[in-house]
Amino acid sequence: MEKTIALLPGDGIGKEVLKVTVDVLKAIEEHFHHQFQFQYGLIGGDAIDQTGTPLPDETVEICKNADAVLLGAVGGPKWDSNPPALRPEKGLLGIRKQLDLYANLRPIITFQSLLDESALKREYIDGVDFIVVRELTGGLYFGEPSERITKDGEEGAVDTLIYKRSEIKRIIVSAFEMASKRRKHVTSVDKANVLETSRLWREIAEEVAKDYPDVTLEHMLVDNAAMQLINAPKRFDVIVTENMFGDILSDEASMITGSLGMLPSASLSSTGLHLYEPVHGSAPDIAGQNIANPTAMILSAAMMLRHSFDLENEAKVLEDAVNQVLQSGKRTADLAKGGPSISTEQLAEEIKAII
Amino acid sequence: MEKTIALLPGDGIGKEVLKVTVDVLKAIEEHFHHQFQFQYGLIGGDAIDQTGTPLPDETVEICKNADAVLLGAVGGPKWDSNPPALRPEKGLLGIRKQLDLYANLRPIITFQSLLDESALKREYIDGVDFIVVRELTGGLYFGEPSERITKDGEEGAVDTLIYKRSEIKRIIVSAFEMASKRRKHVTSVDKANVLETSRLWREIAEEVAKDYPDVTLEHMLVDNAAMQLINAPKRFDVIVTENMFGDILSDEASMITGSLGMLPSASLSSTGLHLYEPVHGSAPDIAGQNIANPTAMILSAAMMLRHSFDLENEAKVLEDAVNQVLQSGKRTADLAKGGPSISTEQLAEEIKAII
Ligand SMILES: CC(C)[C@H](C(=O)O)[C@@H](O)C(=O)O
Ligand SMILES: CC(C)[C@H](C(=O)O)[C@@H](O)C(=O)O
Repeated sequence: MEKTIALLPGDGIGKEVLKVTVDVLKAIEEHFHHQFQFQYGLIGGDAIDQTGTPLPDETVEICKNADAVLLGAVGGPKWDSNPPALRPEKGLLGIRKQLDLYANLRPIITFQSLLDESALKREYIDGVDFIVVRELTGGLYFGEPSERITKDGEEGAVDTLIYKRSEIKRIIVSAFEMASKRRKHVTSVDKANVLETSRLWREIAEEVAKDYPDVTLEHMLVDNAAMQLINAPKRFDVIVTENMFGDILSDEASMITGSLGMLPSASLSSTGLHLYEPVHGSAPDIAGQNIANPTAMILSAAMMLRHSFDLENEAKVLEDAVNQVLQSGKRTADLAKGGPSISTEQLAEEIKAII
Repeated sequence: MEKTIALLPGDGIGKEVLKVTVDVLKAIEEHFHHQFQFQYGLIGGDAIDQTGTPLPDETVEICKNADAVLLGAVGGPKWDSNPPALRPEKGLLGIRKQLDLYANLRPIITFQSLLDESALKREYIDGVDFIVVRELTGGLYFGEPSERITKDGEEGAVDTLIYKRSEIKRIIVSAFEMASKRRKHVTSVDKANVLETSRLWREIAEEVAKDYPDVTLEHMLVDNAAMQLINAPKRFDVIVTENMFGDILSDEASMITGSLGMLPSASLSSTGLHLYEPVHGSAPDIAGQNIANPTAMILSAAMMLRHSFDLENEAKVLEDAVNQVLQSGKRTADLAKGGPSISTEQLAEEIKAII
């Protein structure tokens, strides 16, 4: 199989974890006789430094000409006081919007060998297996106006939470599609007792549910969901929610597995060109030290093999290799609890050795 | 001391927990020779059923003529499909707005006798002692427009996240005031990498911080805060945030203590007339069975004695009584793990017996 993969390393540990992930993908390529073309693009702080904008047009072009996109992470203190339009995050939000990556999937699965790493008790998390489906191109993140204003004669600011029917419908359909291939349960999270957008969301969820008679739909208020994720995470199969709630809840849910360094994500578009990135950020505090955990990025690449290239077997080989290394006890510093640890590159080498 | 207390039982278990809290307050009244006048008002679903509106003018009057307000809880499935203006929650939002209750304080403290009830491991939560200061009368909850719209020729909906400088400043000042009497650390939670309101929030937090040189200020993104609450809850002293983030994070934080049935809250106003309510809701599923845990409501009354009436000693006696009963092992069903439990009324009797 011949595929072109756009690589957007971004900032901080994004560069490091993407670098070793490419090495791992090359091992897959060789072992299974595929041909992967890698095309690098600038994004985030790095792009600001080199081109004056967090998302150069060239990067968008590189992505559009590729079969899938792998992204590291963006951001860092260096650019924190930049004006809004010149912040690394604008690059990330920009690529989401330009590629119409409306469905962000974050699988939350506990790893047997990491059950004791979590702040949560083993009996609460053993067997957790759900997926958060977050709307990614609408809501408060993109609504206009988002600006300084004058209100009652003083300075103020406004942001806008806005959704149209088609935006809500497609993400809810995605969630039901996934649930119908899983345990057939959708939890739609909103704040319908306060927000009009949530009431529309709930209506549309009810409508979509009619087309999936074998999938059960429950509505849950976002504040309750924030509790249930901790108290009863096993109850979930597919959680679907709007952009901002999804940002908060999926990061909260990531704590179930004990380390953000383990969690991959896929951002699916309407066009078939999807983007894959770790859930973690650029972690400026540990950048450049070759100690970051590349697992989330590597598992994101596995998601790419499965969802974008339909290479189920290759994805499985990669995931199994990750699990085997984990079980062998070899760990990066984030999981080593101060004990002996291996580097970013060493972990990738261990995985390659198994492929 | 002579004080008038407005009582708004509301719906579901709100009625039950407020009823026994009044009994407990009568024991305090007698023991310390105070005179409490109790004035009942309708709110929520109960008010809709009896008067056709979730917040009758008479209720607002009763509150305004009182020295403090105790509220049970509102809401229930009976009114869930009512139009927005006729929902129980409108009564709660209405009283918050009308009494200008802008600062909602939720103390999160672990109880030694309940350390094992939490989903979180003992070592993560033993010693947790922080307070969430939530802005309660602005943001997405009250911004206009909040309505159905037509967008690109299709149905849509919009809500508005809006703050003016004075609204942000007063809540941040409250947080710094509290921190200066505690461990002198404020965590201001926002989403400044995306929202304009958050960037204004962050600016004002920096400005206010200058007036409190002995208090340290840290900024934390809301998604990160959702993780830190689980992974490192002991790091917090005072958390301050806007209305919607505060709703989600304070409910999440409540899971640290193991049961929502334990957590009181105070909503402070600019006028000196404050409202006290449990963090939990009306719990329709267990309403009317005399099994609800009244502790959160009773501890809310203790907060009232302290903050509104300056009765520090009486508040302490009440809190100590609650702790003593807890330590004796007598528990309501929510904490009994299927073992022997006592009723709402019995728990209150136990507490009264100690006062
Ligand atoms: C960097 C930031 C803009 C982004 C978001 O809020 O979406 C990040 O937190 C994420 O979840 O991917
Ligand atoms: C009932 C609801 C409107 C309310 C809120 O969201 O503020 C509740 O969840 C709370 O936290 O007091």
